[in-house]
Amino acid sequence: MPADADCVFCKIASGQLPASIVRQNQTWMAFLDITPLSEGHLLVIPKDHYLTLSELPDEVCGQIGSALPTLGRALIQVTGADGFNLLQNNGPVAGQVVPHVHFHLIPRRHDDGLGYRWNAGKYAPGREADVISAFRNALA
Amino acid sequence: MPADADCVFCKIASGQLPASIVRQNQTWMAFLDITPLSEGHLLVIPKDHYLTLSELPDEVCGQIGSALPTLGRALIQVTGADGFNLLQNNGPVAGQVVPHVHFHLIPRRHDDGLGYRWNAGKYAPGREADVISAFRNALA
Repeated sequence: MPADADCVFCKIASGQLPASIVRQNQTWMAFLDITPLSEGHLLVIPKDHYLTLSELPDEVCGQIGSALPTLGRALIQVTGADGFNLLQNNGPVAGQVVPHVHFHLIPRRHDDGLGYRWNAGKYAPGREADVISAFRNALA
Repeated sequence: MPADADCVFCKIASGQLPASIVRQNQTWMAFLDITPLSEGHLLVIPKDHYLTLSELPDEVCGQIGSALPTLGRALIQVTGADGFNLLQNNGPVAGQVVPHVHFHLIPRRHDDGLGYRWNAGKYAPGREADVISAFRNALA
Protein backbone atom coordinates (compact mmCIF):
# COMPACT_ATOMS: atom_id res chain seq x y z
CA MET A 1 0.00 0.00 0.00
CA PRO A 2 1.51 3.36 -0.99
CA ALA A 3 2.38 5.91 1.69
CA ASP A 4 -0.11 8.65 2.41
CA ALA A 5 1.61 11.95 1.53
CA ASP A 6 -0.09 13.75 4.43
CA CYS A 7 0.52 11.07 7.09
CA VAL A 8 3.07 11.87 9.81
CA PHE A 9 3.74 8.18 10.51
CA CYS A 10 4.35 7.48 6.80
CA LYS A 11 6.87 10.33 6.87
CA ILE A 12 8.58 8.76 9.89
CA ALA A 13 8.55 5.33 8.23
CA SER A 14 10.17 6.73 5.07
CA GLY A 15 12.73 8.83 6.97
CA GLN A 16 11.26 12.18 5.85
CA LEU A 17 10.62 13.02 9.52
CA PRO A 18 12.98 12.11 12.36
CA ALA A 19 12.04 9.74 15.19
CA SER A 20 13.82 8.04 18.08
CA ILE A 21 13.69 4.54 16.59
CA VAL A 22 14.38 1.68 19.00
CA ARG A 23 13.98 -1.21 16.55
CA GLN A 24 12.68 -1.75 13.02
CA ASN A 25 12.64 -4.19 10.16
CA GLN A 26 11.17 -4.07 6.64
CA THR A 27 7.59 -4.30 7.92
CA TRP A 28 7.36 -2.32 11.16
CA MET A 29 9.08 0.32 13.27
CA ALA A 30 9.13 0.98 17.04
CA PHE A 31 9.99 4.49 18.28
CA LEU A 32 9.52 6.78 21.29
CA ASP A 33 6.24 8.67 21.46
CA ILE A 34 7.20 12.36 21.47
CA THR A 35 4.33 13.15 23.85
CA PRO A 36 4.77 10.21 26.25
CA LEU A 37 2.17 9.22 28.81
CA SER A 38 5.20 8.05 30.79
CA GLU A 39 8.94 7.88 30.13
CA GLY A 40 9.75 5.12 27.64
CA HIS A 41 6.27 5.12 26.03
CA LEU A 42 6.74 3.35 22.67
CA LEU A 43 4.75 3.37 19.44
CA VAL A 44 4.85 0.43 17.04
CA ILE A 45 3.61 1.03 13.49
CA PRO A 46 3.50 -0.87 10.22
CA LYS A 47 5.66 0.95 7.65
CA ASP A 48 2.88 0.77 5.07
CA HIS A 49 -0.18 2.94 5.49
CA TYR A 50 -3.28 1.32 7.00
CA LEU A 51 -5.95 3.23 8.87
CA THR A 52 -6.96 0.76 11.62
CA LEU A 53 -6.34 -2.73 12.91
CA SER A 54 -9.27 -3.97 10.80
CA GLU A 55 -7.45 -3.08 7.57
CA LEU A 56 -4.06 -4.43 8.61
CA PRO A 57 -3.07 -7.62 6.71
CA ASP A 58 -2.95 -10.67 9.01
CA GLU A 59 0.69 -11.26 8.08
CA VAL A 60 1.75 -7.73 9.05
CA CYS A 61 -0.20 -7.82 12.31
CA GLY A 62 1.32 -11.22 13.06
CA GLN A 63 4.82 -9.84 12.56
CA ILE A 64 4.09 -6.93 14.90
CA GLY A 65 2.54 -9.35 17.40
CA SER A 66 5.62 -11.55 17.43
CA ALA A 67 7.79 -8.51 18.23
CA LEU A 68 5.73 -7.36 21.23
CA PRO A 69 7.17 -9.69 23.93
CA THR A 70 10.74 -8.54 23.22
CA LEU A 71 9.70 -4.88 23.17
CA GLY A 72 7.80 -5.36 26.43
CA ARG A 73 10.83 -6.88 28.15
CA ALA A 74 13.06 -4.05 26.89
CA LEU A 75 10.56 -1.49 28.15
CA ILE A 76 10.60 -2.98 31.66
CA GLN A 77 14.39 -3.26 31.62
CA VAL A 78 14.90 0.33 30.46
CA THR A 79 12.30 2.09 32.59
CA GLY A 80 12.16 -0.13 35.67
CA ALA A 81 8.38 0.16 35.43
CA ASP A 82 6.11 -2.04 37.57
CA GLY A 83 4.04 -3.07 34.55
CA PHE A 84 2.82 -1.79 31.18
CA ASN A 85 -0.21 -1.49 28.95
CA LEU A 86 -0.55 -2.35 25.28
CA LEU A 87 -3.15 0.01 23.83
CA GLN A 88 -4.30 0.37 20.24
CA ASN A 89 -7.12 2.76 19.31
CA ASN A 90 -9.32 2.38 16.22
CA GLY A 91 -11.39 5.37 15.16
CA PRO A 92 -11.68 8.85 16.68
CA VAL A 93 -14.34 7.56 19.11
CA ALA A 94 -11.70 5.18 20.53
CA GLY A 95 -9.10 7.92 20.91
CA GLN A 96 -7.22 7.43 17.62
CA VAL A 97 -5.54 10.72 16.69
CA VAL A 98 -3.09 9.77 13.90
CA PRO A 99 -4.94 7.92 11.09
CA HIS A 100 -2.22 5.27 10.61
CA VAL A 101 -2.60 2.16 12.77
CA HIS A 102 -0.28 2.22 15.81
CA PHE A 103 0.23 0.25 19.02
CA HIS A 104 1.11 2.02 22.28
CA LEU A 105 3.34 0.33 24.87
CA ILE A 106 2.95 2.39 28.04
CA PRO A 107 5.16 1.86 31.13
CA ARG A 108 3.15 2.01 34.37
CA ARG A 109 4.10 2.79 37.95
CA HIS A 110 2.16 2.87 41.19
CA ASP A 111 0.49 6.24 41.70
CA ASP A 112 1.35 7.41 38.16
CA GLY A 113 -2.08 9.01 37.84
CA LEU A 114 -2.85 7.10 34.62
CA GLY A 115 -5.93 4.93 34.36
CA TYR A 116 -9.36 4.27 32.91
CA ARG A 117 -12.86 5.60 33.23
CA TRP A 118 -14.22 2.20 32.30
CA ASN A 119 -16.88 0.43 34.30
CA ALA A 120 -17.71 -3.22 33.67
CA GLY A 121 -21.31 -4.16 32.96
CA LYS A 122 -23.43 -7.30 32.70
CA TYR A 123 -25.40 -8.78 29.82
CA ALA A 124 -29.17 -8.72 30.29
CA PRO A 125 -30.72 -12.22 30.49
CA GLY A 126 -30.60 -13.88 27.05
CA ARG A 127 -28.61 -11.08 25.45
CA GLU A 128 -25.24 -12.84 25.65
CA ALA A 129 -26.64 -15.72 23.59
CA ASP A 130 -27.67 -13.29 20.85
CA VAL A 131 -24.25 -11.66 20.78
CA ILE A 132 -22.33 -14.93 20.68
CA SER A 133 -24.56 -16.16 17.88
CA ALA A 134 -23.92 -12.98 15.88
CA PHE A 135 -20.15 -13.38 16.36
CA ARG A 136 -20.21 -17.00 15.24
CA ASN A 137 -22.15 -16.03 12.13
CA ALA A 138 -19.73 -13.18 11.39
CA LEU A 139 -16.75 -15.52 11.74
CA ALA A 140 -18.28 -18.53 9.97
CA MET B 1 3.66 -24.75 29.66
CA PRO B 2 1.29 -26.66 31.95
CA ALA B 3 -2.00 -25.12 32.99
CA ASP B 4 -2.19 -23.39 36.37
CA ALA B 5 -4.72 -25.33 38.46
CA ASP B 6 -6.02 -22.13 40.08
CA CYS B 7 -6.28 -20.04 36.89
CA VAL B 8 -9.77 -19.24 35.63
CA PHE B 9 -8.55 -18.72 32.05
CA CYS B 10 -6.73 -22.08 32.08
CA LYS B 11 -10.03 -23.64 33.16
CA ILE B 12 -11.82 -21.93 30.27
CA ALA B 13 -9.09 -23.02 27.85
CA SER B 14 -9.39 -26.65 28.97
CA GLY B 15 -13.20 -26.64 28.98
CA GLN B 16 -13.51 -27.04 32.78
CA LEU B 17 -15.34 -23.71 32.91
CA PRO B 18 -17.84 -22.57 30.26
CA ALA B 19 -17.32 -19.51 28.07
CA SER B 20 -19.02 -17.94 25.06
CA ILE B 21 -16.29 -18.82 22.58
CA VAL B 22 -16.38 -16.95 19.26
CA ARG B 23 -13.30 -18.54 17.66
CA GLN B 24 -10.38 -20.73 18.72
CA ASN B 25 -7.57 -22.88 17.39
CA GLN B 26 -4.92 -25.00 19.09
CA THR B 27 -3.03 -21.95 20.35
CA TRP B 28 -5.57 -19.29 21.33
CA MET B 29 -9.22 -18.70 22.16
CA ALA B 30 -11.50 -15.65 21.78
CA PHE B 31 -14.61 -15.37 23.97
CA LEU B 32 -17.04 -12.80 25.37
CA ASP B 33 -15.95 -11.02 28.55
CA ILE B 34 -18.64 -11.83 31.14
CA THR B 35 -18.31 -8.35 32.64
CA PRO B 36 -18.19 -6.37 29.40
CA LEU B 37 -17.17 -2.72 29.22
CA SER B 38 -19.56 -2.64 26.26
CA GLU B 39 -21.65 -5.23 24.43
CA GLY B 40 -19.45 -7.51 22.34
CA HIS B 41 -16.30 -6.94 24.46
CA LEU B 42 -13.98 -9.84 23.57
CA LEU B 43 -11.05 -11.44 25.35
CA VAL B 44 -8.31 -13.25 23.43
CA ILE B 45 -6.03 -15.57 25.43
CA PRO B 46 -3.28 -18.10 24.71
CA LYS B 47 -4.46 -21.56 25.78
CA ASP B 48 -1.21 -22.17 27.65
CA HIS B 49 -0.56 -20.31 30.88
CA TYR B 50 1.67 -17.23 30.70
CA LEU B 51 1.48 -14.36 33.15
CA THR B 52 2.15 -11.33 30.93
CA LEU B 53 3.00 -10.29 27.39
CA SER B 54 6.70 -10.34 28.34
CA GLU B 55 6.60 -14.11 28.96
CA LEU B 56 4.52 -14.99 25.89
CA PRO B 57 6.55 -16.84 23.22
CA ASP B 58 7.00 -14.73 20.07
CA GLU B 59 5.36 -17.45 17.97
CA VAL B 60 2.22 -17.53 20.16
CA CYS B 61 1.96 -13.74 20.24
CA GLY B 62 2.43 -13.66 16.47
CA GLN B 63 -0.44 -16.12 16.01
CA ILE B 64 -2.69 -14.01 18.22
CA GLY B 65 -1.58 -10.88 16.36
CA SER B 66 -2.46 -12.37 13.00
CA ALA B 67 -5.99 -13.14 14.25
CA LEU B 68 -6.73 -9.60 15.50
CA PRO B 69 -7.75 -7.94 12.19
CA THR B 70 -10.43 -10.59 11.55
CA LEU B 71 -11.71 -10.37 15.12
CA GLY B 72 -11.80 -6.56 14.87
CA ARG B 73 -13.86 -6.67 11.68
CA ALA B 74 -16.28 -9.18 13.23
CA LEU B 75 -16.62 -6.98 16.31
CA ILE B 76 -17.57 -3.95 14.19
CA GLN B 77 -19.97 -6.04 12.07
CA VAL B 78 -21.68 -7.59 15.09
CA THR B 79 -21.95 -4.55 17.33
CA GLY B 80 -22.20 -1.71 14.80
CA ALA B 81 -19.68 0.14 16.98
CA ASP B 82 -18.02 3.35 15.76
CA GLY B 83 -14.55 2.05 16.67
CA PHE B 84 -12.76 -0.18 19.16
CA ASN B 85 -9.77 -0.41 21.46
CA LEU B 86 -7.26 -3.21 21.80
CA LEU B 87 -6.06 -3.17 25.42
CA GLN B 88 -3.72 -5.57 27.17
CA ASN B 89 -2.66 -5.00 30.80
CA ASN B 90 0.56 -6.35 32.32
CA GLY B 91 0.83 -6.34 36.10
CA PRO B 92 -1.63 -5.20 38.77
CA VAL B 93 -0.36 -1.62 38.42
CA ALA B 94 -1.50 -1.68 34.78
CA GLY B 95 -4.95 -3.01 35.68
CA GLN B 96 -4.31 -6.74 35.13
CA VAL B 97 -6.79 -8.71 37.26
CA VAL B 98 -6.52 -12.29 35.94
CA PRO B 99 -2.87 -13.46 36.01
CA HIS B 100 -3.02 -15.13 32.56
CA VAL B 101 -2.12 -12.87 29.64
CA HIS B 102 -5.22 -11.61 27.79
CA PHE B 103 -6.09 -9.06 25.11
CA HIS B 104 -9.27 -6.98 25.35
CA LEU B 105 -11.14 -5.91 22.20
CA ILE B 106 -13.58 -3.22 23.34
CA PRO B 107 -16.32 -1.82 21.05
CA ARG B 108 -16.63 1.97 21.38
CA ARG B 109 -19.50 4.35 20.67
CA HIS B 110 -19.86 8.10 20.91
CA ASP B 111 -20.82 9.17 24.43
CA ASP B 112 -20.27 5.66 25.85
CA GLY B 113 -18.68 7.15 28.96
CA LEU B 114 -15.52 5.04 28.54
CA GLY B 115 -12.13 6.68 28.33
CA TYR B 116 -8.75 7.41 29.84
CA ARG B 117 -7.28 9.48 32.62
CA TRP B 118 -4.04 9.73 30.67
CA ASN B 119 -2.28 13.02 30.03
CA ALA B 120 0.58 13.25 27.56
CA GLY B 121 3.87 14.71 28.75
CA LYS B 122 7.15 15.90 27.25
CA TYR B 123 10.73 14.72 27.69
CA ALA B 124 13.01 17.19 29.52
CA PRO B 125 15.86 18.49 27.31
CA GLY B 126 18.40 15.70 26.73
CA ARG B 127 16.32 13.04 28.46
CA GLU B 128 14.92 11.51 25.26
CA ALA B 129 18.46 10.80 24.05
CA ASP B 130 19.19 8.90 27.28
CA VAL B 131 16.03 6.81 26.95
CA ILE B 132 16.56 5.94 23.31
CA SER B 133 20.16 4.95 24.07
CA ALA B 134 18.97 2.65 26.87
CA PHE B 135 16.42 1.03 24.56
CA ARG B 136 18.99 0.43 21.85
CA ASN B 137 21.32 -1.18 24.38
CA ALA B 138 18.49 -3.35 25.73
CA LEU B 139 17.60 -4.50 22.22
CA ALA B 140 21.18 -4.87 20.91
